[in-house]
Amino acid sequence: MPDQIRDFVEQNERPFLEELVQYLRIPSVSSVPGYREDVQRAAQFVADQLARIHLEHVEIVPAERHPLIYADWLHAPNKPTVLCYGHYDVQPPDPLDEWVSDPFEPEIRNDNIYARGAADNKGQMYIHLKAVETLWETAGTLPLNVKFLIEGEEEIGGASISRYLADHRQKLAADISLISDTAPYAASLPTLVTGLRGLVYAEVHAKGASHDLHSGIYGGAAPNPIFGLLELLSSMKGSNGEIAIPGMYDDVRAPSSEELHSWASLDQKALITHEMGADAVGETAYPVLHRLWARPSFDAHGIRGGFVGEGAKTVIPAQATAKCSFRLVPNQDPEKIVAAFRAFVTSNAPRGVQMDVRVLSAGRPWSVDVRSRAIQAARAALSQAFGREPALVRSGASIPIVVDIARTLGIPAVIMGFADPDDGLHAPNEKFNLRNYYTGITAVAMFLDLYSRTT
Amino acid sequence: MPDQIRDFVEQNERPFLEELVQYLRIPSVSSVPGYREDVQRAAQFVADQLARIHLEHVEIVPAERHPLIYADWLHAPNKPTVLCYGHYDVQPPDPLDEWVSDPFEPEIRNDNIYARGAADNKGQMYIHLKAVETLWETAGTLPLNVKFLIEGEEEIGGASISRYLADHRQKLAADISLISDTAPYAASLPTLVTGLRGLVYAEVHAKGASHDLHSGIYGGAAPNPIFGLLELLSSMKGSNGEIAIPGMYDDVRAPSSEELHSWASLDQKALITHEMGADAVGETAYPVLHRLWARPSFDAHGIRGGFVGEGAKTVIPAQATAKCSFRLVPNQDPEKIVAAFRAFVTSNAPRGVQMDVRVLSAGRPWSVDVRSRAIQAARAALSQAFGREPALVRSGASIPIVVDIARTLGIPAVIMGFADPDDGLHAPNEKFNLRNYYTGITAVAMFLDLYSRTT
Repeated sequence: MPDQIRDFVEQNERPFLEELVQYLRIPSVSSVPGYREDVQRAAQFVADQLARIHLEHVEIVPAERHPLIYADWLHAPNKPTVLCYGHYDVQPPDPLDEWVSDPFEPEIRNDNIYARGAADNKGQMYIHLKAVETLWETAGTLPLNVKFLIEGEEEIGGASISRYLADHRQKLAADISLISDTAPYAASLPTLVTGLRGLVYAEVHAKGASHDLHSGIYGGAAPNPIFGLLELLSSMKGSNGEIAIPGMYDDVRAPSSEELHSWASLDQKALITHEMGADAVGETAYPVLHRLWARPSFDAHGIRGGFVGEGAKTVIPAQATAKCSFRLVPNQDPEKIVAAFRAFVTSNAPRGVQMDVRVLSAGRPWSVDVRSRAIQAARAALSQAFGREPALVRSGASIPIVVDIARTLGIPAVIMGFADPDDGLHAPNEKFNLRNYYTGITAVAMFLDLYSRTT
Repeated sequence: MPDQIRDFVEQNERPFLEELVQYLRIPSVSSVPGYREDVQRAAQFVADQLARIHLEHVEIVPAERHPLIYADWLHAPNKPTVLCYGHYDVQPPDPLDEWVSDPFEPEIRNDNIYARGAADNKGQMYIHLKAVETLWETAGTLPLNVKFLIEGEEEIGGASISRYLADHRQKLAADISLISDTAPYAASLPTLVTGLRGLVYAEVHAKGASHDLHSGIYGGAAPNPIFGLLELLSSMKGSNGEIAIPGMYDDVRAPSSEELHSWASLDQKALITHEMGADAVGETAYPVLHRLWARPSFDAHGIRGGFVGEGAKTVIPAQATAKCSFRLVPNQDPEKIVAAFRAFVTSNAPRGVQMDVRVLSAGRPWSVDVRSRAIQAARAALSQAFGREPALVRSGASIPIVVDIARTLGIPAVIMGFADPDDGLHAPNEKFNLRNYYTGITAVAMFLDLYSRTT
């Protein structure tokens, strides 16, 4: 079966590419009203292609601004069901004059296809369709059940799909979801995302005296809310870089040995020294990737108080504010962290300074069991297709749709991205590596095939 | 002698008041170009009055914007010389519609005279002239030598007098200076100011990575300059409210027993609970007035970094800045404090954050020996004139002219203020208590007489 898949993809690179070119020519910019009809055309293109590869119940579902597309094929009884997610809308192409070729007239240079949406997400989500087609053409049927849910509002916040998920749990029920909308850790390194950090974002408002005071007259006996914030927030950091809030680490789950093994093999120079532009700091007891991916972190994002203009003003301000957040890791619960934070602030507010915590947003961390059958199948498929053991990585940032699908439908996700780190998502001259496109089709087809055999 | 002085002042309240009314009618607003001729008129008025009371060498000295006035009487060989300082310029009267009576048409209500400049500083500096006149009229001569130096740019920064002091050390040479430009600690409580805090004002610029970073991706390993500032500045405060910089207290001189005794007698409720609008914090080992007047303090005046708009942005900013200052007490040296601060910042900069200290201004603390003959004479004179033991207070804020005269001429200052705390300096309905005016004249005349007898 692997050989048949590989051969079929190899023989069909030309039509696979031609279809992608057609798809990329449609300027489905979701955020600009002037592209409305083009977005609609892109939805129709995807729906037509789904129907052409034998998907059933193909629907273009009206949404708040741009439609969702649903389709399924459910004729593999006693076999698992995979929900394939993707999006057909793209970012605006601006600034236009920085593009070497027209963003909506795909051009191939050095085995890369240049166009807006090439990697994010048209090229990657189209891999799912071509993988299903490959399975059809090599086996005459599909080895498992598939559902497709493809949105047109990803680049503008994705509110419609959240509601659709919540309203159609039964219809969308599946064993796993499959998402290809991420970059690998390094160029052409097959990569599975096995965890995402959650987030609690809050403002801390500090109040001192009833009005601004002259520091000459009152300095030494007046409460200073800037200082209050400084003392409070810095008391939250322990001497080893850890967060010094009681209970903060109670629910932190250590990463799996498979993940630790993979992280140890990854080159960190590009990420830290080059991309971050600074040497790593933080919890020295843990390797850098462990800190970024499997340890909660606490950062101040903004702070303001008192006089910040040119020159000197000897004011003790009456108030000051900081914005800060916790990044959470499996299995931390945002509500418990908020409660621990509030309790810490209450019991550690410096003398004379009133502290008020306002939580602006909270999102759960996510992870997948790397020993699950789905991830085992994904690792094997990527390994066979790319000839390299895939990296198991996490992302410190949130990908809301992953957590949304996982929590709403109660299923794990296989996050298998095929973009290269330099593909220029959201930037001029966005591209997609055609080797990743073809090998991605092989990998996803192999994954569906292998996963179908696990039950 | 005291009785003669008291009697003369009592018999001359009417002319003393009439002259003050004339003086207050001249709108000598130094900051507004349209009042230029009025300011000149006020200078001429003062010069004329000085000549009328037998002062010699009366000069109207051209300055950057408004002239200085100099005068002297130096015919008391082997007697000390007193340099009387004051200013004849006033603040603008705005907002005009809040005045009950015209700011430049003095009106007497409840034994107070209402006019711009009534207390700051025309009423108070005119006390010096009337005290000299009283001595002339009661003794037919002066018991010591006097020099007057009166400026017209106090409300606009006082740059000219600094240069004049530096350029005329010989001409201005004296044993002490006498300044009446402060409010007493409480209404009608005679008060001597025996110390002023100094100031070192600085900005601390913190730099982390080369550019702003996404906290999801890098949080936990990225240097955060906001946090760097938080940690650095809060590490400067010890657990008992003290400043935790090595060497900070090396040169701090304990206040005299006379001052401590006086401070213990002062009611602090008005200052702290009412005016400050908060309970006192700080170094609990010291009484509140001791903290404010005789202990160095450290305050943050402003802080800015990262995202401070509405909502949430998960940025780790590349830089952050804080403004802060030390208030210094006798005998701290601003240069030594700057050096200690820089050394502390260098050795305590949190890992990964570069700190840059920029000093914006530095001023020395000032104090006078309360056991000196001048202060002993001032205490005795105030005590006799007001029938109350005078308070010995300090001010946490700086009064640049005091330090300027003290340092340039190398002489102590007697700071004897006669305004009431509610006189509304710089505010609408500025007033001056006529009882303080007349008793002030008596007190200054007695002081000059008593001080002349100490040598």
